Amino acid sequence: MKNIIITAGGTIENIDEVRKLTNTSTGKLGSIICNEIVRYKDIDEDLQIHYILSTNAEIPLVVPDKIKYYKVTDTDSVIKIVDYLFQKYKIDCFIHSMAVSDFTASYSIQVEQLVNELVNEIRNTTDRDFRKKVTSILQMPMNTIDKNHKISSKNDIIINLKRTPKIISTIKKYDKEVFLVGFKLLSHVSKEQLISAAAKLEEENQCNIVVANDIRDISEKNHIAHLIKGGISRNIFNTKEEIAKGLIAEIFRR
Amino acid sequence: MKNIIITAGGTIENIDEVRKLTNTSTGKLGSIICNEIVRYKDIDEDLQIHYILSTNAEIPLVVPDKIKYYKVTDTDSVIKIVDYLFQKYKIDCFIHSMAVSDFTASYSIQVEQLVNELVNEIRNTTDRDFRKKVTSILQMPMNTIDKNHKISSKNDIIINLKRTPKIISTIKKYDKEVFLVGFKLLSHVSKEQLISAAAKLEEENQCNIVVANDIRDISEKNHIAHLIKGGISRNIFNTKEEIAKGLIAEIFRR
Repeated sequence: MKNIIITAGGTIENIDEVRKLTNTSTGKLGSIICNEIVRYKDIDEDLQIHYILSTNAEIPLVVPDKIKYYKVTDTDSVIKIVDYLFQKYKIDCFIHSMAVSDFTASYSIQVEQLVNELVNEIRNTTDRDFRKKVTSILQMPMNTIDKNHKISSKNDIIINLKRTPKIISTIKKYDKEVFLVGFKLLSHVSKEQLISAAAKLEEENQCNIVVANDIRDISEKNHIAHLIKGGISRNIFNTKEEIAKGLIAEIFRR
Repeated sequence: MKNIIITAGGTIENIDEVRKLTNTSTGKLGSIICNEIVRYKDIDEDLQIHYILSTNAEIPLVVPDKIKYYKVTDTDSVIKIVDYLFQKYKIDCFIHSMAVSDFTASYSIQVEQLVNELVNEIRNTTDRDFRKKVTSILQMPMNTIDKNHKISSKNDIIINLKRTPKIISTIKKYDKEVFLVGFKLLSHVSKEQLISAAAKLEEENQCNIVVANDIRDISEKNHIAHLIKGGISRNIFNTKEEIAKGLIAEIFRR
Protein backbone atom coordinates (compact mmCIF):
# COMPACT_ATOMS: atom_id res chain seq x y z
CA MET A 1 0.00 0.00 0.00
CA LYS A 2 1.94 3.01 -1.23
CA ASN A 3 -0.41 5.46 -2.93
CA ILE A 4 -3.93 6.21 -1.71
CA ILE A 5 -6.25 8.69 -3.37
CA ILE A 6 -8.97 10.22 -1.21
CA THR A 7 -11.55 12.55 -2.74
CA ALA A 8 -13.45 14.82 -0.34
CA GLY A 9 -15.93 17.69 -0.27
CA GLY A 10 -18.50 18.75 -2.82
CA THR A 11 -17.76 19.95 -6.32
CA ILE A 12 -18.83 23.43 -7.47
CA GLU A 13 -20.32 23.95 -10.93
CA ASN A 14 -20.43 27.49 -12.29
CA ILE A 15 -23.76 28.79 -13.52
CA ASP A 16 -22.26 32.17 -14.35
CA GLU A 17 -19.43 34.34 -13.12
CA VAL A 18 -20.78 34.59 -9.57
CA ARG A 19 -23.51 31.96 -9.24
CA LYS A 20 -22.71 28.38 -8.43
CA LEU A 21 -24.36 25.00 -8.14
CA THR A 22 -23.02 23.17 -5.12
CA ASN A 23 -24.09 20.65 -2.47
CA THR A 24 -24.20 20.06 1.27
CA SER A 25 -20.99 18.05 1.45
CA THR A 26 -18.48 19.40 3.97
CA GLY A 27 -15.58 17.03 3.31
CA LYS A 28 -15.59 16.03 6.98
CA LEU A 29 -15.84 12.28 6.40
CA GLY A 30 -12.95 12.32 3.90
CA SER A 31 -10.85 14.35 6.31
CA ILE A 32 -11.50 11.91 9.20
CA ILE A 33 -10.69 8.92 6.97
CA CYS A 34 -7.41 10.62 6.02
CA ASN A 35 -6.53 11.39 9.64
CA GLU A 36 -7.26 7.81 10.72
CA ILE A 37 -5.17 6.30 7.93
CA VAL A 38 -2.13 8.40 8.83
CA ARG A 39 -2.55 7.46 12.50
CA TYR A 40 -2.95 3.75 11.72
CA LYS A 41 -0.26 1.77 13.51
CA ASP A 42 0.57 -0.71 10.73
CA ILE A 43 1.02 1.96 8.14
CA ASP A 44 3.71 1.66 5.49
CA GLU A 45 6.40 4.30 6.00
CA ASP A 46 6.37 5.20 2.32
CA LEU A 47 2.63 5.73 2.20
CA GLN A 48 1.52 8.78 0.25
CA ILE A 49 -2.03 10.10 0.39
CA HIS A 50 -3.17 12.10 -2.63
CA TYR A 51 -5.98 14.21 -1.25
CA ILE A 52 -8.34 15.67 -3.86
CA LEU A 53 -10.54 18.27 -2.19
CA SER A 54 -13.03 20.93 -3.22
CA THR A 55 -12.24 24.52 -2.24
CA ASN A 56 -14.81 24.49 0.57
CA ALA A 57 -13.84 21.10 2.04
CA GLU A 58 -12.43 20.52 5.51
CA ILE A 59 -8.70 19.88 5.57
CA PRO A 60 -7.29 16.89 7.50
CA LEU A 61 -5.45 17.80 10.70
CA VAL A 62 -2.61 15.33 10.45
CA VAL A 63 1.08 15.90 9.73
CA PRO A 64 1.39 17.21 6.21
CA ASP A 65 4.37 15.22 4.86
CA LYS A 66 2.23 12.17 4.11
CA ILE A 67 -0.41 14.13 2.21
CA LYS A 68 -0.35 15.88 -1.14
CA TYR A 69 -3.28 18.21 -1.73
CA TYR A 70 -5.02 18.79 -5.06
CA LYS A 71 -7.70 21.51 -4.98
CA VAL A 72 -10.54 21.10 -7.44
CA THR A 73 -13.66 23.05 -8.38
CA ASP A 74 -16.02 21.37 -10.84
CA THR A 75 -16.45 17.77 -11.99
CA ASP A 76 -14.25 18.36 -14.98
CA SER A 77 -11.33 19.42 -12.78
CA VAL A 78 -11.71 16.23 -10.70
CA ILE A 79 -11.62 14.07 -13.84
CA LYS A 80 -8.42 15.81 -14.95
CA ILE A 81 -6.57 15.36 -11.67
CA VAL A 82 -7.65 11.70 -11.31
CA ASP A 83 -6.34 11.07 -14.81
CA TYR A 84 -3.05 12.81 -13.96
CA LEU A 85 -2.55 10.77 -10.77
CA PHE A 86 -3.23 7.42 -12.46
CA GLN A 87 -0.75 8.33 -15.21
CA LYS A 88 1.93 9.37 -12.72
CA TYR A 89 1.58 6.85 -9.86
CA LYS A 90 0.72 3.22 -9.26
CA ILE A 91 -2.42 3.84 -7.21
CA ASP A 92 -3.22 1.12 -4.65
CA CYS A 93 -6.45 2.45 -3.19
CA PHE A 94 -9.11 4.98 -4.26
CA ILE A 95 -11.51 6.26 -1.60
CA HIS A 96 -14.17 8.25 -3.41
CA SER A 97 -15.96 10.11 -0.62
CA MET A 98 -16.39 13.32 -2.62
CA ALA A 99 -19.91 14.41 -3.54
CA VAL A 100 -19.24 14.96 -7.24
CA SER A 101 -22.04 16.92 -8.84
CA ASP A 102 -24.28 14.70 -10.95
CA PHE A 103 -25.07 17.73 -13.08
CA THR A 104 -23.32 20.64 -14.71
CA ALA A 105 -25.00 23.74 -16.11
CA SER A 106 -25.38 23.18 -19.83
CA TYR A 107 -27.03 26.52 -20.59
CA SER A 108 -29.06 29.36 -19.06
CA ILE A 109 -31.73 31.26 -20.93
CA GLN A 110 -34.39 33.85 -20.15
CA VAL A 111 -37.79 32.17 -19.86
CA GLU A 112 -39.21 34.60 -22.40
CA GLN A 113 -36.49 33.79 -24.92
CA LEU A 114 -37.20 30.09 -24.59
CA VAL A 115 -40.91 30.72 -25.07
CA ASN A 116 -40.11 32.71 -28.22
CA GLU A 117 -37.98 29.96 -29.67
CA LEU A 118 -40.56 27.28 -28.95
CA VAL A 119 -43.47 29.31 -30.34
CA ASN A 120 -41.60 30.30 -33.50
CA GLU A 121 -40.49 26.76 -34.16
CA ILE A 122 -44.00 25.42 -33.67
CA ARG A 123 -45.52 28.09 -35.92
CA ASN A 124 -43.10 27.40 -38.73
CA THR A 125 -43.31 23.68 -38.63
CA THR A 126 -45.41 21.88 -41.20
CA ASP A 127 -44.64 18.26 -40.58
CA ARG A 128 -45.98 18.27 -37.04
CA ASP A 129 -42.92 16.46 -35.76
CA PHE A 130 -43.09 18.59 -32.65
CA ARG A 131 -41.35 16.19 -30.33
CA LYS A 132 -38.05 16.27 -32.17
CA LYS A 133 -38.09 20.04 -32.49
CA VAL A 134 -39.12 20.73 -28.91
CA THR A 135 -36.49 18.29 -27.63
CA SER A 136 -33.82 19.89 -29.72
CA ILE A 137 -34.69 23.39 -28.48
CA LEU A 138 -34.74 22.29 -24.85
CA GLN A 139 -31.40 20.54 -25.29
CA MET A 140 -29.75 23.64 -26.68
CA PRO A 141 -31.70 26.76 -27.59
CA MET A 142 -30.10 29.54 -29.61
CA ASN A 143 -30.38 32.60 -27.37
CA THR A 144 -28.57 31.30 -24.31
CA ILE A 145 -26.85 33.59 -21.81
CA ASP A 146 -23.05 33.85 -21.83
CA LYS A 147 -21.76 31.72 -18.92
CA ASN A 148 -18.70 33.92 -18.46
CA HIS A 149 -20.68 36.94 -17.32
CA LYS A 150 -23.09 37.66 -14.53
CA ILE A 151 -26.66 36.87 -15.53
CA SER A 152 -28.97 39.89 -15.33
CA SER A 153 -31.58 39.65 -12.61
CA LYS A 154 -34.19 41.42 -14.72
CA ASN A 155 -35.85 38.24 -16.00
CA ASP A 156 -36.70 34.81 -14.70
CA ILE A 157 -34.41 32.22 -16.22
CA ILE A 158 -34.30 28.56 -17.06
CA ILE A 159 -31.20 26.46 -16.55
CA ASN A 160 -30.52 23.13 -18.20
CA LEU A 161 -28.51 20.72 -16.08
CA LYS A 162 -26.93 17.89 -18.00
CA ARG A 163 -25.44 14.84 -16.38
CA THR A 164 -21.71 14.71 -15.71
CA PRO A 165 -19.56 11.60 -16.40
CA LYS A 166 -19.43 9.19 -13.43
CA ILE A 167 -15.83 9.23 -12.19
CA ILE A 168 -16.23 6.02 -10.19
CA SER A 169 -16.93 4.09 -13.40
CA THR A 170 -13.48 5.00 -14.77
CA ILE A 171 -11.31 3.87 -11.85
CA LYS A 172 -11.03 0.14 -12.58
CA LYS A 173 -10.39 1.00 -16.22
CA TYR A 174 -7.24 2.81 -15.12
CA ASP A 175 -6.12 -0.13 -13.01
CA LYS A 176 -8.14 -3.19 -12.19
CA GLU A 177 -5.99 -3.93 -9.12
CA VAL A 178 -6.82 -0.71 -7.29
CA PHE A 179 -8.84 -1.17 -4.08
CA LEU A 180 -11.92 0.92 -4.82
CA VAL A 181 -14.15 2.33 -2.08
CA GLY A 182 -17.44 3.77 -3.33
CA PHE A 183 -20.03 5.82 -1.44
CA LYS A 184 -23.79 5.75 -1.95
CA LEU A 185 -25.86 8.56 -0.45
CA LEU A 186 -29.63 8.33 -0.74
CA SER A 187 -32.47 10.25 0.84
CA HIS A 188 -35.25 8.81 3.01
CA VAL A 189 -35.29 5.29 1.58
CA SER A 190 -35.74 1.94 3.31
CA LYS A 191 -32.70 -0.05 4.46
CA GLU A 192 -33.39 -2.57 1.69
CA GLN A 193 -33.49 0.12 -1.00
CA LEU A 194 -30.25 1.63 0.30
CA ILE A 195 -28.40 -1.69 0.37
CA SER A 196 -29.74 -2.63 -3.04
CA ALA A 197 -28.61 0.69 -4.58
CA ALA A 198 -25.17 0.34 -2.96
CA ALA A 199 -24.89 -3.24 -4.25
CA LYS A 200 -25.69 -1.97 -7.74
CA LEU A 201 -23.00 0.72 -7.45
CA GLU A 202 -20.57 -1.95 -6.23
CA GLU A 203 -21.29 -4.32 -9.09
CA GLU A 204 -21.41 -1.77 -11.92
CA ASN A 205 -18.12 -0.15 -10.94
CA GLN A 206 -16.32 -3.18 -9.50
CA CYS A 207 -16.00 -1.49 -6.12
CA ASN A 208 -14.25 -3.58 -3.46
CA ILE A 209 -16.47 -2.05 -0.80
CA VAL A 210 -19.22 0.55 -0.70
CA VAL A 211 -20.25 2.80 2.18
CA ALA A 212 -24.03 3.25 2.04
CA ASN A 213 -25.82 6.02 3.93
CA ASP A 214 -29.04 7.97 4.03
CA ILE A 215 -29.15 11.77 4.44
CA ARG A 216 -31.59 11.47 7.34
CA ASP A 217 -29.03 9.40 9.31
CA ILE A 218 -26.32 12.08 9.13
CA SER A 219 -26.12 14.74 11.83
CA GLU A 220 -23.44 16.72 13.63
CA LYS A 221 -22.80 13.82 16.03
CA ASN A 222 -23.94 10.68 14.27
CA HIS A 223 -23.39 9.18 10.85
CA ILE A 224 -25.00 5.81 10.35
CA ALA A 225 -23.60 3.82 7.42
CA HIS A 226 -23.55 0.28 6.11
CA LEU A 227 -20.40 -1.41 4.82
CA ILE A 228 -21.46 -3.23 1.66
CA LYS A 229 -19.37 -6.07 0.23
CA GLY A 230 -20.62 -8.67 -2.22
CA GLY A 231 -24.02 -6.99 -2.26
CA ILE A 232 -24.57 -7.55 1.47
CA SER A 233 -24.34 -5.28 4.52
CA ARG A 234 -21.34 -6.61 6.48
CA ASN A 235 -21.21 -4.00 9.20
CA ILE A 236 -23.06 -0.95 10.51
CA PHE A 237 -21.23 2.14 11.77
CA ASN A 238 -22.66 4.96 13.87
CA THR A 239 -20.12 7.76 13.55
CA LYS A 240 -17.66 9.12 10.98
CA GLU A 241 -14.79 7.80 13.14
CA GLU A 242 -16.30 4.30 13.11
CA ILE A 243 -16.71 4.48 9.32
CA ALA A 244 -13.06 5.52 8.96
CA LYS A 245 -11.82 2.70 11.22
CA GLY A 246 -14.04 0.17 9.47
CA LEU A 247 -12.66 1.19 6.09
CA ILE A 248 -9.07 0.95 7.31
CA ALA A 249 -9.69 -2.57 8.61
CA GLU A 250 -10.93 -3.57 5.15
CA ILE A 251 -8.24 -1.74 3.17
CA PHE A 252 -5.23 -2.94 5.20
CA ARG A 253 -6.53 -6.45 5.80
CA ARG A 254 -5.39 -7.62 2.38
CA MET B 1 -26.40 55.78 16.35
CA LYS B 2 -27.56 52.86 18.46
CA ASN B 3 -28.57 49.96 16.22
CA ILE B 4 -26.72 49.02 13.04
CA ILE B 5 -27.69 46.11 10.82
CA ILE B 6 -24.95 44.62 8.66
CA THR B 7 -25.76 41.85 6.19
CA ALA B 8 -22.84 39.72 4.96
CA GLY B 9 -22.03 36.65 2.91
CA GLY B 10 -24.00 34.99 0.12
CA THR B 11 -27.42 33.43 0.47
CA ILE B 12 -27.98 29.76 -0.32
CA GLU B 13 -31.08 28.63 -2.23
CA ASN B 14 -32.02 24.95 -2.09
CA ILE B 15 -32.55 23.16 -5.38
CA ASP B 16 -33.24 19.89 -3.61
CA GLU B 17 -32.26 18.21 -0.35
CA VAL B 18 -28.53 18.28 -1.13
CA ARG B 19 -28.04 20.60 -4.10
CA LYS B 20 -27.76 24.34 -3.65
CA LEU B 21 -27.57 27.52 -5.64
CA THR B 22 -25.02 29.85 -4.12
CA ASN B 23 -22.53 32.56 -5.09
CA THR B 24 -18.92 33.60 -4.69
CA SER B 25 -19.48 35.98 -1.78
CA THR B 26 -17.28 35.26 1.25
CA GLY B 27 -18.66 37.80 3.69
CA LYS B 28 -15.18 39.26 4.12
CA LEU B 29 -16.12 42.87 3.33
CA GLY B 30 -19.05 42.78 5.79
CA SER B 31 -16.79 41.33 8.45
CA ILE B 32 -14.14 44.04 7.95
CA ILE B 33 -16.79 46.79 8.05
CA CYS B 34 -18.08 45.34 11.33
CA ASN B 35 -14.57 45.16 12.84
CA GLU B 36 -13.81 48.73 11.84
CA ILE B 37 -17.06 50.07 13.28
CA VAL B 38 -16.43 48.46 16.66
CA ARG B 39 -12.86 49.82 16.70
CA TYR B 40 -13.99 53.34 15.71
CA LYS B 41 -12.89 55.82 18.36
CA ASP B 42 -16.04 57.96 18.46
CA ILE B 43 -18.36 55.03 18.83
CA ASP B 44 -21.44 55.24 21.03
CA GLU B 45 -21.06 53.00 24.08
CA ASP B 46 -24.57 51.64 23.62
CA LEU B 47 -24.02 50.70 20.00
CA GLN B 48 -25.41 47.32 18.99
CA ILE B 49 -24.53 45.67 15.70
CA HIS B 50 -27.07 43.19 14.37
CA TYR B 51 -25.00 40.98 12.09
CA ILE B 52 -27.02 38.96 9.55
CA LEU B 53 -24.74 36.39 7.97
CA SER B 54 -25.03 33.38 5.71
CA THR B 55 -23.81 30.04 7.07
CA ASN B 56 -20.64 30.17 4.97
CA ALA B 57 -19.74 33.81 5.73
CA GLU B 58 -16.63 34.99 7.55
CA ILE B 59 -17.25 36.03 11.14
CA PRO B 60 -15.93 39.37 12.45
CA LEU B 61 -12.98 39.09 14.84
CA VAL B 62 -13.98 41.78 17.30
CA VAL B 63 -15.21 41.48 20.88
CA PRO B 64 -18.58 39.78 20.81
CA ASP B 65 -20.63 41.86 23.28
CA LYS B 66 -21.34 44.56 20.70
CA ILE B 67 -22.55 42.09 18.06
CA LYS B 68 -25.65 39.94 17.84
CA TYR B 69 -25.48 37.25 15.14
CA TYR B 70 -28.38 36.06 13.02
CA LYS B 71 -27.57 33.13 10.73
CA VAL B 72 -29.56 32.91 7.54
CA THR B 73 -29.76 30.54 4.58
CA ASP B 74 -31.98 31.62 1.68
CA THR B 75 -33.42 34.99 0.65
CA ASP B 76 -36.66 34.23 2.45
CA SER B 77 -34.85 33.78 5.76
CA VAL B 78 -33.11 37.17 5.30
CA ILE B 79 -36.45 38.89 4.66
CA LYS B 80 -37.87 37.35 7.86
CA ILE B 81 -35.00 38.43 10.11
CA VAL B 82 -34.88 41.96 8.64
CA ASP B 83 -38.60 42.26 9.34
CA TYR B 84 -38.10 40.99 12.90
CA LEU B 85 -35.29 43.47 13.59
CA PHE B 86 -37.22 46.48 12.28
CA GLN B 87 -40.21 45.48 14.42
CA LYS B 88 -38.11 45.08 17.54
CA TYR B 89 -35.53 47.90 17.32
CA LYS B 90 -35.21 51.47 16.10
CA ILE B 91 -32.62 50.79 13.40
CA ASP B 92 -30.29 53.72 12.66
CA CYS B 93 -28.18 52.27 9.88
CA PHE B 94 -28.52 49.36 7.44
CA ILE B 95 -25.36 48.20 5.62
CA HIS B 96 -26.46 45.71 3.00
CA SER B 97 -23.22 44.07 1.88
CA MET B 98 -24.76 40.59 1.55
CA ALA B 99 -24.97 39.04 -1.90
CA VAL B 100 -28.63 38.09 -1.74
CA SER B 101 -29.53 35.63 -4.48
CA ASP B 102 -31.49 37.30 -7.28
CA PHE B 103 -33.11 33.95 -8.00
CA THR B 104 -34.67 31.08 -6.15
CA ALA B 105 -35.44 27.65 -7.61
CA SER B 106 -39.10 27.68 -8.59
CA TYR B 107 -39.21 24.12 -9.90
CA SER B 108 -37.08 21.30 -11.29
CA ILE B 109 -38.28 18.89 -13.95
CA GLN B 110 -36.81 16.15 -16.10
CA VAL B 111 -36.16 17.47 -19.61
CA GLU B 112 -38.18 14.58 -21.07
CA GLN B 113 -41.16 15.37 -18.86
CA LEU B 114 -41.13 18.98 -19.97
CA VAL B 115 -40.94 17.90 -23.62
CA ASN B 116 -43.95 15.61 -23.02
CA GLU B 117 -46.01 18.37 -21.48
CA LEU B 118 -45.20 20.82 -24.26
CA VAL B 119 -45.88 18.32 -27.04
CA ASN B 120 -49.16 17.13 -25.53
CA GLU B 121 -50.38 20.65 -24.98
CA ILE B 122 -49.51 21.66 -28.53
CA ARG B 123 -51.17 18.56 -30.00
CA ASN B 124 -54.40 19.12 -28.11
CA THR B 125 -54.71 22.79 -28.76
CA THR B 126 -57.13 24.01 -31.38
CA ASP B 127 -57.00 27.76 -31.02
CA ARG B 128 -53.31 28.00 -31.86
CA ASP B 129 -52.72 30.30 -28.93
CA PHE B 130 -49.41 28.60 -28.40
CA ARG B 131 -47.66 31.47 -26.66
CA LYS B 132 -49.95 31.53 -23.66
CA LYS B 133 -49.85 27.77 -23.28
CA VAL B 134 -46.10 27.45 -23.70
CA THR B 135 -45.52 30.31 -21.24
CA SER B 136 -47.84 28.76 -18.71
CA ILE B 137 -46.09 25.37 -18.94
CA LEU B 138 -42.64 26.91 -18.61
CA GLN B 139 -43.81 28.94 -15.64
CA MET B 140 -45.08 25.88 -13.80
CA PRO B 141 -45.31 22.48 -15.45
CA MET B 142 -47.25 19.66 -13.82
CA ASN B 143 -44.68 16.90 -13.38
CA THR B 144 -42.10 18.78 -11.32
CA ILE B 145 -39.67 17.03 -8.99
CA ASP B 146 -40.27 17.16 -5.23
CA LYS B 147 -37.86 19.78 -3.82
CA ASN B 148 -37.66 18.01 -0.47
CA HIS B 149 -35.91 14.98 -1.86
CA LYS B 150 -32.68 14.36 -3.72
CA ILE B 151 -33.19 14.62 -7.49
CA SER B 152 -32.30 11.42 -9.33
CA SER B 153 -29.22 11.70 -11.53
CA LYS B 154 -30.69 9.40 -14.18
CA ASN B 155 -32.02 12.19 -16.38
CA ASP B 156 -30.99 15.66 -17.48
CA ILE B 157 -33.12 18.26 -15.77
CA ILE B 158 -34.36 21.78 -16.25
CA ILE B 159 -34.59 24.26 -13.40
CA ASN B 160 -36.68 27.40 -13.40
CA LEU B 161 -35.16 30.26 -11.43
CA LYS B 162 -37.63 32.96 -10.50
CA ARG B 163 -36.59 36.35 -9.19
CA THR B 164 -36.57 36.96 -5.45
CA PRO B 165 -37.94 40.15 -3.83
CA LYS B 166 -35.32 42.92 -3.55
CA ILE B 167 -34.69 43.42 0.17
CA ILE B 168 -33.03 46.80 -0.32
CA SER B 169 -36.28 48.22 -1.73
CA THR B 170 -38.08 47.50 1.57
CA ILE B 171 -35.69 49.22 3.99
CA LYS B 172 -36.89 52.83 3.69
CA LYS B 173 -40.47 51.58 3.88
CA TYR B 174 -39.70 50.26 7.36
CA ASP B 175 -38.15 53.56 8.41
CA LYS B 176 -37.38 56.48 6.15
CA GLU B 177 -34.80 57.82 8.64
CA VAL B 178 -32.50 54.78 8.51
CA PHE B 179 -29.08 55.48 6.94
CA LEU B 180 -29.06 52.98 4.07
CA VAL B 181 -25.84 51.72 2.48
CA GLY B 182 -26.36 49.80 -0.76
CA PHE B 183 -23.85 47.76 -2.77
CA LYS B 184 -23.74 47.35 -6.53
CA LEU B 185 -21.61 44.57 -8.00
CA LEU B 186 -21.31 44.35 -11.76
CA SER B 187 -19.09 42.35 -14.07
CA HIS B 188 -16.66 43.76 -16.64
CA VAL B 189 -18.44 47.05 -17.34
CA SER B 190 -17.06 50.53 -17.95
CA LYS B 191 -16.65 52.97 -15.06
CA GLU B 192 -19.54 55.01 -16.46
CA GLN B 193 -21.86 52.00 -16.62
CA LEU B 194 -20.94 51.02 -13.06
CA ILE B 195 -21.56 54.51 -11.65
CA SER B 196 -24.79 54.84 -13.59
CA ALA B 197 -26.10 51.48 -12.30
CA ALA B 198 -25.12 52.42 -8.74
CA ALA B 199 -26.83 55.80 -9.10
CA LYS B 200 -29.98 54.00 -10.25
CA LEU B 201 -29.84 51.68 -7.22
CA GLU B 202 -29.34 54.72 -4.97
CA GLU B 203 -32.30 56.59 -6.42
CA GLU B 204 -34.76 53.70 -6.65
CA ASN B 205 -34.16 52.59 -3.07
CA GLN B 206 -33.38 55.95 -1.47
CA CYS B 207 -29.93 54.78 -0.42
CA ASN B 208 -27.85 57.36 1.43
CA ILE B 209 -24.70 55.98 -0.17
CA VAL B 210 -23.86 53.13 -2.53
CA VAL B 211 -20.61 51.18 -2.81
CA ALA B 212 -20.07 50.32 -6.49
CA ASN B 213 -17.62 47.65 -7.60
CA ASP B 214 -16.77 45.39 -10.51
CA ILE B 215 -15.92 41.69 -10.08
CA ARG B 216 -12.72 42.12 -12.07
CA ASP B 217 -11.44 44.68 -9.52
CA ILE B 218 -11.75 42.31 -6.55
CA SER B 219 -8.82 40.08 -5.63
CA GLU B 220 -7.27 38.64 -2.49
CA LYS B 221 -5.35 41.89 -1.85
CA ASN B 222 -7.27 44.63 -3.62
CA HIS B 223 -10.86 45.70 -3.79
CA ILE B 224 -11.47 48.79 -5.87
CA ALA B 225 -14.80 50.52 -5.17
CA HIS B 226 -16.50 53.84 -5.78
CA LEU B 227 -18.47 55.65 -3.12
CA ILE B 228 -21.60 56.94 -4.85
CA LYS B 229 -23.66 59.76 -3.36
CA GLY B 230 -26.16 61.88 -5.26
CA GLY B 231 -25.43 59.85 -8.38
CA ILE B 232 -21.76 60.84 -8.46
CA SER B 233 -18.56 59.03 -7.50
CA ARG B 234 -17.28 60.92 -4.42
CA ASN B 235 -14.33 58.71 -3.56
CA ILE B 236 -12.40 55.68 -4.79
CA PHE B 237 -11.13 52.99 -2.41
CA ASN B 238 -8.51 50.34 -3.16
CA THR B 239 -8.93 47.81 -0.35
CA LYS B 240 -11.71 46.40 1.84
CA GLU B 241 -10.20 48.28 4.81
CA GLU B 242 -10.39 51.57 2.89
CA ILE B 243 -14.01 50.84 1.95
CA ALA B 244 -14.85 50.14 5.60
CA LYS B 245 -13.15 53.35 6.82
CA GLY B 246 -14.78 55.39 4.05
CA LEU B 247 -18.21 54.08 5.04
CA ILE B 248 -17.63 54.86 8.70
CA ALA B 249 -16.65 58.43 7.84
CA GLU B 250 -19.95 58.82 5.99
CA ILE B 251 -22.13 57.06 8.55
CA PHE B 252 -20.78 58.80 11.65
CA ARG B 253 -20.36 62.21 10.04
CA ARG B 254 -24.04 63.05 10.46
